[in-house]
Amino acid sequence: MRILFAELTREESRAIARDGVLILPVGATEQHGPHLPVGTDSMGAEYVARAAAAALADRFPVAVAPTLWYGSSPHHLPFGGTMSLDAGTFLAVLMDLGRSLARASFRRLFIVNGHGGNHELIGIAARDLALEEGIEVAACSWWAMAHHELASAGAAEIGRLPGHAGAFESSIVLALDATLVREPRPHRPEWSSPLIGTVDAPVRIERPGSWEATDGFTDSPSRATAALGRTYLKIGIDRLTEAVSEFYMGSNAP
Amino acid sequence: MRILFAELTREESRAIARDGVLILPVGATEQHGPHLPVGTDSMGAEYVARAAAAALADRFPVAVAPTLWYGSSPHHLPFGGTMSLDAGTFLAVLMDLGRSLARASFRRLFIVNGHGGNHELIGIAARDLALEEGIEVAACSWWAMAHHELASAGAAEIGRLPGHAGAFESSIVLALDATLVREPRPHRPEWSSPLIGTVDAPVRIERPGSWEATDGFTDSPSRATAALGRTYLKIGIDRLTEAVSEFYMGSNAP
Amino acid sequence: MRILFAELTREESRAIARDGVLILPVGATEQHGPHLPVGTDSMGAEYVARAAAAALADRFPVAVAPTLWYGSSPHHLPFGGTMSLDAGTFLAVLMDLGRSLARASFRRLFIVNGHGGNHELIGIAARDLALEEGIEVAACSWWAMAHHELASAGAAEIGRLPGHAGAFESSIVLALDATLVREPRPHRPEWSSPLIGTVDAPVRIERPGSWEATDGFTDSPSRATAALGRTYLKIGIDRLTEAVSEFYMGSNAP
Amino acid sequence: MRILFAELTREESRAIARDGVLILPVGATEQHGPHLPVGTDSMGAEYVARAAAAALADRFPVAVAPTLWYGSSPHHLPFGGTMSLDAGTFLAVLMDLGRSLARASFRRLFIVNGHGGNHELIGIAARDLALEEGIEVAACSWWAMAHHELASAGAAEIGRLPGHAGAFESSIVLALDATLVREPRPHRPEWSSPLIGTVDAPVRIERPGSWEATDGFTDSPSRATAALGRTYLKIGIDRLTEAVSEFYMGSNAP
Amino acid sequence: MRILFAELTREESRAIARDGVLILPVGATEQHGPHLPVGTDSMGAEYVARAAAAALADRFPVAVAPTLWYGSSPHHLPFGGTMSLDAGTFLAVLMDLGRSLARASFRRLFIVNGHGGNHELIGIAARDLALEEGIEVAACSWWAMAHHELASAGAAEIGRLPGHAGAFESSIVLALDATLVREPRPHRPEWSSPLIGTVDAPVRIERPGSWEATDGFTDSPSRATAALGRTYLKIGIDRLTEAVSEFYMGSNAP
Amino acid sequence: MRILFAELTREESRAIARDGVLILPVGATEQHGPHLPVGTDSMGAEYVARAAAAALADRFPVAVAPTLWYGSSPHHLPFGGTMSLDAGTFLAVLMDLGRSLARASFRRLFIVNGHGGNHELIGIAARDLALEEGIEVAACSWWAMAHHELASAGAAEIGRLPGHAGAFESSIVLALDATLVREPRPHRPEWSSPLIGTVDAPVRIERPGSWEATDGFTDSPSRATAALGRTYLKIGIDRLTEAVSEFYMGSNAP
Repeated sequence: MRILFAELTREESRAIARDGVLILPVGATEQHGPHLPVGTDSMGAEYVARAAAAALADRFPVAVAPTLWYGSSPHHLPFGGTMSLDAGTFLAVLMDLGRSLARASFRRLFIVNGHGGNHELIGIAARDLALEEGIEVAACSWWAMAHHELASAGAAEIGRLPGHAGAFESSIVLALDATLVREPRPHRPEWSSPLIGTVDAPVRIERPGSWEATDGFTDSPSRATAALGRTYLKIGIDRLTEAVSEFYMGSNAP
Repeated sequence: MRILFAELTREESRAIARDGVLILPVGATEQHGPHLPVGTDSMGAEYVARAAAAALADRFPVAVAPTLWYGSSPHHLPFGGTMSLDAGTFLAVLMDLGRSLARASFRRLFIVNGHGGNHELIGIAARDLALEEGIEVAACSWWAMAHHELASAGAAEIGRLPGHAGAFESSIVLALDATLVREPRPHRPEWSSPLIGTVDAPVRIERPGSWEATDGFTDSPSRATAALGRTYLKIGIDRLTEAVSEFYMGSNAP
Repeated sequence: MRILFAELTREESRAIARDGVLILPVGATEQHGPHLPVGTDSMGAEYVARAAAAALADRFPVAVAPTLWYGSSPHHLPFGGTMSLDAGTFLAVLMDLGRSLARASFRRLFIVNGHGGNHELIGIAARDLALEEGIEVAACSWWAMAHHELASAGAAEIGRLPGHAGAFESSIVLALDATLVREPRPHRPEWSSPLIGTVDAPVRIERPGSWEATDGFTDSPSRATAALGRTYLKIGIDRLTEAVSEFYMGSNAP
Repeated sequence: MRILFAELTREESRAIARDGVLILPVGATEQHGPHLPVGTDSMGAEYVARAAAAALADRFPVAVAPTLWYGSSPHHLPFGGTMSLDAGTFLAVLMDLGRSLARASFRRLFIVNGHGGNHELIGIAARDLALEEGIEVAACSWWAMAHHELASAGAAEIGRLPGHAGAFESSIVLALDATLVREPRPHRPEWSSPLIGTVDAPVRIERPGSWEATDGFTDSPSRATAALGRTYLKIGIDRLTEAVSEFYMGSNAP
Repeated sequence: MRILFAELTREESRAIARDGVLILPVGATEQHGPHLPVGTDSMGAEYVARAAAAALADRFPVAVAPTLWYGSSPHHLPFGGTMSLDAGTFLAVLMDLGRSLARASFRRLFIVNGHGGNHELIGIAARDLALEEGIEVAACSWWAMAHHELASAGAAEIGRLPGHAGAFESSIVLALDATLVREPRPHRPEWSSPLIGTVDAPVRIERPGSWEATDGFTDSPSRATAALGRTYLKIGIDRLTEAVSEFYMGSNAP
Repeated sequence: MRILFAELTREESRAIARDGVLILPVGATEQHGPHLPVGTDSMGAEYVARAAAAALADRFPVAVAPTLWYGSSPHHLPFGGTMSLDAGTFLAVLMDLGRSLARASFRRLFIVNGHGGNHELIGIAARDLALEEGIEVAACSWWAMAHHELASAGAAEIGRLPGHAGAFESSIVLALDATLVREPRPHRPEWSSPLIGTVDAPVRIERPGSWEATDGFTDSPSRATAALGRTYLKIGIDRLTEAVSEFYMGSNAP
């Protein structure tokens, strides 16, 4: 059974539309320090989305739409290696895709995000698509969705969770494809980077130049291992599998 | 010493610009169940913002800009009593105001939000204004900023924190002006409303009709008291006072 | 009887929607010379709107929406103390609010403006909302609406009517709250400021730098008195009361 | 000496840019009752603009840009025969043209309007272009600019001034080309059409269906004559000639 | 029989709407070298559109809408003499006009373009208007439509076809009005200008500064003659006449 | 040597920026008849782009950016299976990505398109990015770039070139992965589908319902073979390799 939407025909897509879930991975193409590839965020989201879909495919119709590799990354532009969409453009892309799906009678869209800079925008798109188009939309950043379980596995102890291009993300890429991580990875003795405005902080603080002061990663990549990455990915996949299933079961569509 | 920006002259505004903090309260005008006024969110944000500014005014230059009473509330339009801005319009308003301030050489803007539907949008505006205009921007939803302290005070036990038009918000309005709460307030035996997609959920789920199914409030207003509201407001004011102060002190502006 | 929309519940708002008038005051937050507060335009519009609503409240359902304190003020940005919305953003705000009201079955919206830079934009919004949403919309700048009566009272003799931050507006603020006017007010021996492109000129002429050449006020604030301000406000309130009443009575809504 | 900008070469255009005035006629293509052509407003603006330029051409460099035949006419769409631009599109066209001129070092732009629905929008464009691009911009609706003189000639007695497709505009078209007026023109015994929200009213009132109730003209076309039209056009041309000259002379460009 | 839409009344426009074709000429106002007028592209499109309409007027209802003299010409801004619309604005104009026509029950719109920079945009507008508004839309650049016949007549041998301000366009203007061509025309010994990214190239290549390197014309104007221009125009008119007729006959509107 | 941009680090990306070419494949996710996958256009563009980059990688720095799988496909929405971006959104994505690259000092961008509905839009983006950002941009639809060679190989004889979901595209997918083509493919005895407005037609004609009348493919998929597909792909890759090389060599960047 195929789970990649791009490989389905229009007729095959109808089963997903009528009574299934379409998963849309969104990521970014942006600098990830001197050691990680610029596609890191997209790779992670695509991987967990596809694995969750594979796990669910015998339960109900499910497919994974082509990954949107470009996200909202203006804070990384000064480093180079970054291809960013404006916040408004990124939102317009999600709205257009959601409207297309509604036009094709899709009932459920699940957005899986791999990049912090998209986090707020997927939430807004989810709300506005549900209201405007009458479809059910779920949205999550996969590491935020699995925060509790990842923290239980120690992911918040080796560095920020998720941070940016630090121990967590370096572990993920090591697990996905160790040849993509340039060695030696930079080492940082402690969590020395200044607090950068993030989603989960009680107050979001944005100061010009704060990212530049970090050399583009928030905590020490040297603490990463492939084994940890495999653990984190498994947690993410399990949680996403569960979340998509609940989204499908709890559906109040007729 | 005046703390309302609207009451300052242009010359007086320069002290805030040069070495102070301008606080911008943003809220909403939207249905809050059958018992609370539609201005609830704006009233709360304005109140805590002004009180924090008053507490800070002898430490450094601070003022409170006129409250933006209109927010992003499309999910409340079906109930009536709601005047909402599109997400894009709301974002454009914040960007235009921030650009005006940068043009006038302001260095620090602190956005204090009182409405859940604005939460993501103030974060995006903070990030993009700092990057584009080179000013320092802080942004928070006041009850999210003080979540830990409010929860310690039991606010998450009488209902959702903050929920919508439930025990928490009803307590706030009782404390602000008890005549604004229509009695008898509706009672709901338990936390019966279906989970509505919110900021802090691991997965944000938006289903058409979920708000309509709640009669517009998320938990029981009958559990609210003015005394609780006063406690919550004091917590919010104290936390905001502290946060604005830290924002000012930690400034890396020259 | 409450006349502030923000204080009504959604149920109470329905009487206004069904057979009443919602008044929306719009102003600006912008420099008003060295002597007047930056909120001058908003304060004036809010005051006359609320007073007119109070006068009408026993005749038909009426309420005053929260004041929009931010207007289209790009010409004042060079002076500082100004928080301006782009023309397109300001128009989008009015359209969004009008659409929200139409969605809630409101039939009549009356926009009361206090800032010259908004004058054309409220007219466009009124036309387009009526056409697009099928609601009745009235729009006026309060001093332009009452121009004949104000001129009869001598307001065009002590300075421009309304001018900007000159004798007329200084009188208004003296009447509203004399402590808001910084003394000594600047004196200007004659109407010396060059003609600045305004709504009522036969030809609108906009020359770069013309505002800067005026020090931000168009005629002599020293000619203002609180007594004159009270007279002007009373005229504005009476005329607005009459205009809203006629708007209500002449309604061709079924 | 050529006065049509379209006929100039780029080199010839430089004299206008450096020390002259470019006049831009804007009109509309919209229904004008059963008797007048849909191009009425554009024809009038183009005619007076070209005649004024011809009168000025030996005094200083002047040219007339190609007429913008499409304006903001949503209120006439229900009648048919109307090709309208959205308010935002019309404004964008004016801004783009002004930016092009600034890019080519033009210093003075004079917008001559022939359609009421554009009146506010040309004013906004004038203000924003001067501020953003640092060029001098004048803008007028030709009949509003010459209102005093036209009224002195009795134009406000035979019908509204300018009204729409009534005695005034019918006179203009009779004078331009009598074969363009279909006879017999409709007759209306008195000024019977309900007040339609216009620029010069103290309060602008927009009610759905008010235009449809008029059959598309505001006062009696039967009162028009070609002789009156010639008088009105001469007044418009003389006033515009004077206004453009004053705009040129009073220029504060270096 | 009148063929200019601007000269029709709204009633007369209905025959075109119901069972005819409205032709919309679009051009540009932009530099055309040192010898041709800036209105060249608009003049050509208007001329062939009107001549084709005249040839068709006794077969079915047809009219020519007012020419849009402003197109998408950002590549010519550095030369001066250019009034350009942004790509988005130009597209918005076409969409707004098409929507107006659909609102007035027009069934067929034929866009005739005279400027290379508009070529792609008219195609997008045609597609999107047909899909969104359910009207039939044809679009062509007149020299591209007639490319085969023009090439057969040798137009591709004296220079580029169409090129810009070279032998082809200079011939056209000589034929339209020889006094509009400044003599002596520049001579260029061979096709020396570097290849500039155009519609018909297998790969479109855009390099900064490539236009500036040409002095604003692509091939030698000295090879133009009025006789050639008359031949080219006749070919264009004949082909357009045929194309509009086929568009009308092949219509699948009911 | 890695050629996938997503796999590079920010430091490695600098060689491409400084003196190389970044290739951006753009496609679509849209219905392709009952037999081809919805990702067909994206798959083709990605394949030829990567193969060309591989062939060039030892000559100069080159990389392939992540494929944009979503294009401008409104004409396919009625069939289902289509996720489309509005024309304006698609253009905004390309502009944002190009601006990001300019910000990171990239000098050359080559857009390789696989979907007809994007053809005009990539041209506009190429022009406007080069003008606005001062970078060199090439853009092509790969089958249009190689039209001559593909036609020489007979590709225009088995069906339209490229057509949509017909013999040409079916051959391509058979060559890429034969399991993606559902058998039996539909057969169509002749080129029976009505002419659908396309890029290369002398006149672009868009009639509502014309696509629906085709069942979503333009010519007979039954004529496709994997061998033909391999031939076509090789031609496309060779031509693209050559075109990118010429773009690099002919660069007038300093």
